[in-house]
Amino acid sequence: MKNVGVYRLPMQGPDDVSELKKLIEENVIAAEDIVAIVAQTEGDGYARGYANLNFELLLSEKLGMTREQVTEKIPMLMIGLTGGLMSPHYTVFTRQDVEAVETDEKRLAIGIAKTRVLKPEEYGTKTHVMLVAEAVKEAMKDAEIEDIEDVHLVEVKCPNLTAARVADAESRGQKVVSKNFAEAGAKSKGASALGVAVALGEVSADAITDAVICQDWSLYSTKASTSAGNEQVASKVVLLGNSKKAVSPFTIASGVMKDTIDVQEAVKTFESLGLSFEQGALDTLSQDRVAAVFINAGADASGSIRNRRTTLKSDFLAGYQGIVAKAVINAIVGAMIQDTMILASAGFEHQGPLGANLLAVIAEVE
Amino acid sequence: MKNVGVYRLPMQGPDDVSELKKLIEENVIAAEDIVAIVAQTEGDGYARGYANLNFELLLSEKLGMTREQVTEKIPMLMIGLTGGLMSPHYTVFTRQDVEAVETDEKRLAIGIAKTRVLKPEEYGTKTHVMLVAEAVKEAMKDAEIEDIEDVHLVEVKCPNLTAARVADAESRGQKVVSKNFAEAGAKSKGASALGVAVALGEVSADAITDAVICQDWSLYSTKASTSAGNEQVASKVVLLGNSKKAVSPFTIASGVMKDTIDVQEAVKTFESLGLSFEQGALDTLSQDRVAAVFINAGADASGSIRNRRTTLKSDFLAGYQGIVAKAVINAIVGAMIQDTMILASAGFEHQGPLGANLLAVIAEVE
Amino acid sequence: MKNVGVYRLPMQGPDDVSELKKLIEENVIAAEDIVAIVAQTEGDGYARGYANLNFELLLSEKLGMTREQVTEKIPMLMIGLTGGLMSPHYTVFTRQDVEAVETDEKRLAIGIAKTRVLKPEEYGTKTHVMLVAEAVKEAMKDAEIEDIEDVHLVEVKCPNLTAARVADAESRGQKVVSKNFAEAGAKSKGASALGVAVALGEVSADAITDAVICQDWSLYSTKASTSAGNEQVASKVVLLGNSKKAVSPFTIASGVMKDTIDVQEAVKTFESLGLSFEQGALDTLSQDRVAAVFINAGADASGSIRNRRTTLKSDFLAGYQGIVAKAVINAIVGAMIQDTMILASAGFEHQGPLGANLLAVIAEVE
Amino acid sequence: MKNVGVYRLPMQGPDDVSELKKLIEENVIAAEDIVAIVAQTEGDGYARGYANLNFELLLSEKLGMTREQVTEKIPMLMIGLTGGLMSPHYTVFTRQDVEAVETDEKRLAIGIAKTRVLKPEEYGTKTHVMLVAEAVKEAMKDAEIEDIEDVHLVEVKCPNLTAARVADAESRGQKVVSKNFAEAGAKSKGASALGVAVALGEVSADAITDAVICQDWSLYSTKASTSAGNEQVASKVVLLGNSKKAVSPFTIASGVMKDTIDVQEAVKTFESLGLSFEQGALDTLSQDRVAAVFINAGADASGSIRNRRTTLKSDFLAGYQGIVAKAVINAIVGAMIQDTMILASAGFEHQGPLGANLLAVIAEVE
Repeated sequence: MKNVGVYRLPMQGPDDVSELKKLIEENVIAAEDIVAIVAQTEGDGYARGYANLNFELLLSEKLGMTREQVTEKIPMLMIGLTGGLMSPHYTVFTRQDVEAVETDEKRLAIGIAKTRVLKPEEYGTKTHVMLVAEAVKEAMKDAEIEDIEDVHLVEVKCPNLTAARVADAESRGQKVVSKNFAEAGAKSKGASALGVAVALGEVSADAITDAVICQDWSLYSTKASTSAGNEQVASKVVLLGNSKKAVSPFTIASGVMKDTIDVQEAVKTFESLGLSFEQGALDTLSQDRVAAVFINAGADASGSIRNRRTTLKSDFLAGYQGIVAKAVINAIVGAMIQDTMILASAGFEHQGPLGANLLAVIAEVE
Repeated sequence: MKNVGVYRLPMQGPDDVSELKKLIEENVIAAEDIVAIVAQTEGDGYARGYANLNFELLLSEKLGMTREQVTEKIPMLMIGLTGGLMSPHYTVFTRQDVEAVETDEKRLAIGIAKTRVLKPEEYGTKTHVMLVAEAVKEAMKDAEIEDIEDVHLVEVKCPNLTAARVADAESRGQKVVSKNFAEAGAKSKGASALGVAVALGEVSADAITDAVICQDWSLYSTKASTSAGNEQVASKVVLLGNSKKAVSPFTIASGVMKDTIDVQEAVKTFESLGLSFEQGALDTLSQDRVAAVFINAGADASGSIRNRRTTLKSDFLAGYQGIVAKAVINAIVGAMIQDTMILASAGFEHQGPLGANLLAVIAEVE
Repeated sequence: MKNVGVYRLPMQGPDDVSELKKLIEENVIAAEDIVAIVAQTEGDGYARGYANLNFELLLSEKLGMTREQVTEKIPMLMIGLTGGLMSPHYTVFTRQDVEAVETDEKRLAIGIAKTRVLKPEEYGTKTHVMLVAEAVKEAMKDAEIEDIEDVHLVEVKCPNLTAARVADAESRGQKVVSKNFAEAGAKSKGASALGVAVALGEVSADAITDAVICQDWSLYSTKASTSAGNEQVASKVVLLGNSKKAVSPFTIASGVMKDTIDVQEAVKTFESLGLSFEQGALDTLSQDRVAAVFINAGADASGSIRNRRTTLKSDFLAGYQGIVAKAVINAIVGAMIQDTMILASAGFEHQGPLGANLLAVIAEVE
Repeated sequence: MKNVGVYRLPMQGPDDVSELKKLIEENVIAAEDIVAIVAQTEGDGYARGYANLNFELLLSEKLGMTREQVTEKIPMLMIGLTGGLMSPHYTVFTRQDVEAVETDEKRLAIGIAKTRVLKPEEYGTKTHVMLVAEAVKEAMKDAEIEDIEDVHLVEVKCPNLTAARVADAESRGQKVVSKNFAEAGAKSKGASALGVAVALGEVSADAITDAVICQDWSLYSTKASTSAGNEQVASKVVLLGNSKKAVSPFTIASGVMKDTIDVQEAVKTFESLGLSFEQGALDTLSQDRVAAVFINAGADASGSIRNRRTTLKSDFLAGYQGIVAKAVINAIVGAMIQDTMILASAGFEHQGPLGANLLAVIAEVE
């Protein structure tokens, strides 16, 4: 049986991993139990790299490994760009074997896996989709989750094209999906999301062709949150769900807010975990039970909401619509749980229907 | 007896006053009944001027007046900078005398007034405070509101210093409060808010000195929302409250959210109007009864919320913290009423305690 | 014979047309002589509309015409977004018939013309190209310029697609070039530039197909500067060159800076007007002779210059790369003439080779 | 005798120190000879930290030292925020003892020094000024420069206040110069610049009081470029000049451009190094001789240039005026040397007269 720990820790900057250091040095967390880190870092893409390097240096020291070995062992997902009331932080997931008797109760489980190294010409293609689907199934096994209904959040970090990778593909006479790196990155994220959808039975493998990727938005996963990075060469999967093989003090639930103000769905998701509301927010006891919240924001996919025109896509902050989209969903859900230390990522490519927000909540069992 | 009309109308751009034009031409609104317009315009400060000019041109034509006469007769408050889910719009207030019998019931009333032309050296001083206080009392009379408890929102538009005004003051041997125009503007807004506070008994006139303005934040009004403009030479007041002399189909209520996620207070404010919640948002009937919502956002006064560090003041969007602060409070309250066509202005100078959001809601009586 | 006047006037904001008002009221400019206005306005797109409306209101009063008639008579090109040392201003071109004897000397001439109203489905197509080519030839005639070599600057304002225009086209069973408005706008600008190229013999009409527009960048005009606006229904042309039929005190020259630091070409262009340099800038006498400078900036087309990587397209100001591209070319040429009141527009679609800056200079004859 | 090496190397991102790594591994640079690194990094402040950490890791490995020892030994100045045509890069300075006979010829020399650890209450005070002055004199000695006229550039990195440091000062009953960290940082930079001014005889020590710092702008150094960092506890000085004790292949010159378009002064500075111009830019031979250019940009200190109003301080990019100010001076000087890989920092606090740009150029001797 597995016990999964969830530690949500504040950071004072992308270079601040002191809270984790303290927990390791105080023996609250055993470094070797760490299975994944998901961080909400402030600043731009370079700040993500900076945070990642700081985590690597800390864990390299604590685990007596090289930085490369740390990267190989522990998926670390840095989600950048914070705005509004978003509060920079990271969530550390630990896992350890414990003696316990299996019952019918399902508890929080975590699984990790990754695809083989992808060739640049495979990024954003059906091959990419199918390899991610396979990795998701592996991660389910790793998490000891049998039923796809029990999977609630699948974070995927996938590779981006770079000039060097295009050159590599072309030197072998191969073509990449697009030499526009933004477009290629979107397809890599889209393919990863569709891989989750295939693995979880949300989309049939037969429906997947190269052409539907970032084209047919009726295909999507309601559990996937994907991001891409230049440093990745494979797609890494961190999967969260509930399992009878787990004895963690937590469970996880998820929901699909059809747009950013679909609070009814958010309420339903929180209530499914036995949490209760009072005067527009969780009551104090329920607030204390929330361990972590993850949102995949899709507000930036649209220039209107409920027939009200917004300026998200037209105003002089249009270059920052992703940040603003995250800030508003963070504010809405943060107000509900009375805490804005919520992870929000922005990305619409096959991650829920267009304009939707995917919500996953981890809470302590009562 | 007075009947007050409230028309909240969408705008497609700062130059779009077509919805008002249509209502006038369809005789839904009589141009001469218009007493005030409060607009949420997208874009920067110039877009505010552009919108204002478009309203002037329309009303000049419909009222057969010059543009200057329109400006003199009808206070038009343009609140600029939209972000997130904010939806550009304007609210037109009309007022007409009607035959009716006074009862005990209080309904929405509106009053307008303005100070005399202020000398540049008076901007942001105690003189400014006392002149605004006087104008607020006049506006109460104009609104036929007797009890200060019945006042729920006082919008004040006040003058900004300009190079020419500084020169004018100095040519007469006078000193302005600050030659830093941003600082002087803040003091003009602060003095205006304190003027409201004095008129409404929230602050004693004795407590006011030049020195407390933008210095002693324990002094504030919970009803004031003030903005400054280079084009203003006096302070203009638009006051909203409830009065037995009014027979409007609406009433107004207000509340002070102590911070941006103080949804409990927002719920209380909506409920005080007989509106009710269901699954985190107003129920459908209640949604239909909401006529307009005005928020004065104070999120940008702070770099943290409930001890969670935010990046509002430190990130590379720090130059836009006002927009972002408005976007997040708009999202939270917009989610509650399931409509983001809510007016949000940002300004903390003596407008509520630091970090608070002032909320005013106009709803149809059941 | 025609005398052409050039008045470059500062503006304190998009609403400031006071310098022109003064010159009209002092009889320096006769309102009826005004043939075109080209403005560099600060602020966003709404500020452009605001400036335009202010010019319309002034000229409507001074010419005793409706605003629509002013718009019909005088092309007014508002070029928005200023940055760096750019100084908001506008250039008023006047033209009047004068008695004079034709000599061999060529002087500044101006011509205006416009295409017929374009159907939305024609925007950005070969039809658009050919109609602009025709209008350019008409403008040459209007300017009394015979030799295409004598044309140095052709400003074109063309229409943008809007939702209503797409609906109109579709209601007639027609297809527009793209429903992505940014893409459609680029094609409208590209088609306009190619129209100039065809008229000036830079590109053969045979080379034009719908497919080459915004696709084959080897086709371009070195004289075209095009911009698009939602308010336009036709393409308007303002053409500047030299003509024996003109007796203006000015001449115009142009050059193609192959990239932003190709100052050698800029020096050559200034010198071709008899202006001379000293210590890196025009000498004082030469500075005084410069009447106006127009640049079409292409720096934003590239992420590097002379093999040096820049962050124009990658940094967190990437959303503003057009402003920054204009700011840097303005600074470079402004330093040369010791005056930054230079008009810079950004737009690369068939306006010069990729990355080039098109330079046009009007100077007084010695 | 000392030989000083200057290596200006491009970087692909704040994490890219590969060019230095290659030069060390190819034995072009001996790691132990490195005396200082000055980098122009893209991205925000966190990217500066990221770059710094990458340099530390590389040099820690190559020198067999801890990261702390590297930081102690080698001042590394990361100048962030790039815009326009600025090209991210870093300059590595090396120094080694060589056998050579002293002549009358002066060549490039470099000296480093630092103040003792400053107490938080000393930041931005006269004590700070005097300690920096002392460190500058030490750095002159380290550089073996006798005549203050031979000093051309003094880069100073000084400490910023933080909440913890304020708390520390207050726990000892001391007051800091300002609890507004931006203001305190400006004073720290200003005090550092005045320290340089005192050491170089530009300002008399008698003129220094706490009150003049960031107040009396008539006091300044024309050689100082200062920046502040939260990680600093002392002020670090890197000083460049010419010395008879140096046998480097380079010399350095400096000039004060009185405003951003004062190209005459820039031309004079380049010519003082024997470089020559042709058609508005250095000729090819002269271009090849330029080793590095450092500019301290002051454009953002003003809202106008040569009586032309700019929008640097008023437009919606006002939050980024430092970047834009750097972009425009980089473009102007970059055009002169036909290379935009020029270091530009923004900072006006006692670094030259208001609005000026300080220019320092290192070139190979003919």
